[in-house]
Amino acid sequence: MRESGARAAGGDVRRHNLALVLGEVVDAEPVSRATIAARTGLTRGTVSSLVEELLGAGLLDELAAARGGPGRPANPLQLNRSGPAGLGIEIEVDHVAACVVDLTGAVRATARAASDHRDAPPGVALARATELARAVRAEAGLDVAGVAVAVPGVVGTDGIVVRAPNLPRWSGADVGPLLDGLPVTTANEADLAALAELWFADGPPDALYVSGGVGVGAGIVLGGRLFRGAGGRAGELGHVVVDPDGPNCRCGGHGCLEQVAGRDALLRAGRTTDLDALPAHVLDAAARALGVALAGAVNLLDVPVVVLGGIYPRLGEALRAAVHDRLCERVVHRSDVQVRLSALGPGGALRAAAATVVRQRLLRP
Amino acid sequence: MRESGARAAGGDVRRHNLALVLGEVVDAEPVSRATIAARTGLTRGTVSSLVEELLGAGLLDELAAARGGPGRPANPLQLNRSGPAGLGIEIEVDHVAACVVDLTGAVRATARAASDHRDAPPGVALARATELARAVRAEAGLDVAGVAVAVPGVVGTDGIVVRAPNLPRWSGADVGPLLDGLPVTTANEADLAALAELWFADGPPDALYVSGGVGVGAGIVLGGRLFRGAGGRAGELGHVVVDPDGPNCRCGGHGCLEQVAGRDALLRAGRTTDLDALPAHVLDAAARALGVALAGAVNLLDVPVVVLGGIYPRLGEALRAAVHDRLCERVVHRSDVQVRLSALGPGGALRAAAATVVRQRLLRP
Repeated sequence: MRESGARAAGGDVRRHNLALVLGEVVDAEPVSRATIAARTGLTRGTVSSLVEELLGAGLLDELAAARGGPGRPANPLQLNRSGPAGLGIEIEVDHVAACVVDLTGAVRATARAASDHRDAPPGVALARATELARAVRAEAGLDVAGVAVAVPGVVGTDGIVVRAPNLPRWSGADVGPLLDGLPVTTANEADLAALAELWFADGPPDALYVSGGVGVGAGIVLGGRLFRGAGGRAGELGHVVVDPDGPNCRCGGHGCLEQVAGRDALLRAGRTTDLDALPAHVLDAAARALGVALAGAVNLLDVPVVVLGGIYPRLGEALRAAVHDRLCERVVHRSDVQVRLSALGPGGALRAAAATVVRQRLLRP
Repeated sequence: MRESGARAAGGDVRRHNLALVLGEVVDAEPVSRATIAARTGLTRGTVSSLVEELLGAGLLDELAAARGGPGRPANPLQLNRSGPAGLGIEIEVDHVAACVVDLTGAVRATARAASDHRDAPPGVALARATELARAVRAEAGLDVAGVAVAVPGVVGTDGIVVRAPNLPRWSGADVGPLLDGLPVTTANEADLAALAELWFADGPPDALYVSGGVGVGAGIVLGGRLFRGAGGRAGELGHVVVDPDGPNCRCGGHGCLEQVAGRDALLRAGRTTDLDALPAHVLDAAARALGVALAGAVNLLDVPVVVLGGIYPRLGEALRAAVHDRLCERVVHRSDVQVRLSALGPGGALRAAAATVVRQRLLRP
């Protein structure tokens, strides 16, 4: 049973109870008013009144009445599939994407376009993103409650892009005012990819989620929650040094992980434009570099699982096994650190971005 | 005002209230019963009864009566300087040490002896530690409530030494049964050094505390609390790779930080037995290696402060400044990460070990 709303302070009680009722529906839909009352400790009358408000706000939906005993039939409740939706936008070095999810987190429309933003100001990618956003909104036909933007860079707690080494003109960008109309939040792509594993793939509660692209990021999940660090900028695995005398990096350092194991670095070293055609020596070097950086992260954080996402699942089981071996060579406590490939595919961060919008609505109705 | 004890479950209420009263004394000694009642929300009668029990248990002490109004004089209360004490033991690669702290955390006796344990089984160092412990107990003349042992290795949540690369025969050692009589806990030396900075030097609540010795460890403090990781083994900074082709390390890896910036490595590279006589090129290499490893830690954890303790303060301001420069070159978000030298001196971990014992008594009387 959830904690009853009785302890919340005066004016917040109703709001708290609305979230409590929604939480029951999220956990166990379809669910009756009577079950909600039994599980929350609220009276039947209070639950009915809260449910009316949530039906009115378009957050809940009533299914056909269940046949049963005497009296008024108890129509089971579920989240409204036509209710407020979330719009996710993904800005990447080489593409933009947009998707709409409904209140249940299901993807209702998605679109993606190749587009190189390496030397472009934020407005270029955002204009393309706005076009895609318009298309997916039209396709989904839902009211969008807000927008969350995934950015491959360091995002501060205020949502401003601190620095995106692979999108140098995005430093200091405040995405909010650039997408007019809707409330906008901005988050780091790898953090969102980690949340996607937690939310949509039953990912482990203590893990380092690696997101491989042109850059390499990581989302750190501890005790089932995203760890953001004191300034909200944790998880910059791509700039952990794997070779102090290695090539210059766009971050201003040199020998960073992403200069060996990022997508562009892999393609350059393999003299190919196709990730599936990378020669063995390039994959070996990538596994070695990932092993060095990840061993450092495991030695510091003591996480039991590493999940490789983004481009890495495409590189296959051989890469996974090699990374695992390289990592274990260098982990002090020698426990069996697991290395897994993500099964979610590249759309995870985008879907998680959109889902953050609806989760906000459900947590704070 | 602290939260009143009223919410604690049935049989635990008195215990909870005892801790509440003790907490008030810790925060503001000397303090009167009336002030404790006002600050905890407990009745005067309840406070008096709890105080009697704490006086009887030797945790509190009554000062001379304050002159004042009519009625029974209100004797101010303080922690009992003759009450239960904590014994700390430090096992290091090249020495052992022991100290006794009283309930206030003040050091009442301390002793240290040089002794090389590199290839010895745990019993050797523990026998020496037991001798020192006997001496400091006799000198302090206090009843010791328990022992905490600081070990320069990875300690699991069960207190067993998982692995101490510089004390290879300690792997798997369970210190508890080896020190007879008293309840024993075991903890990582760098974690205790970090707690020492927090408890005794007003250290910052988000920081990486580096402890330099033969090995190099780190205690990670986030939000004012020690971060131990899922398995209690976080903070193994010394085995973060700073040069993938570097020298072999006792951990089985190679190119680890402590092979460049640990005490033995520094003395070997400087061809000296005196840390104060290290040539500039050795200090430069150490600063570079610390910069690489710490930049990785800051990129991953986003901590705003690094505190260098153990041997590093002896190496001076020039080392601190060089580490800061090397670190900032490689930190992605380019915020001004501070690098400080610890002002606590080498006894911090030992004192914190002893203090963990008395803190337990005060938190769970």
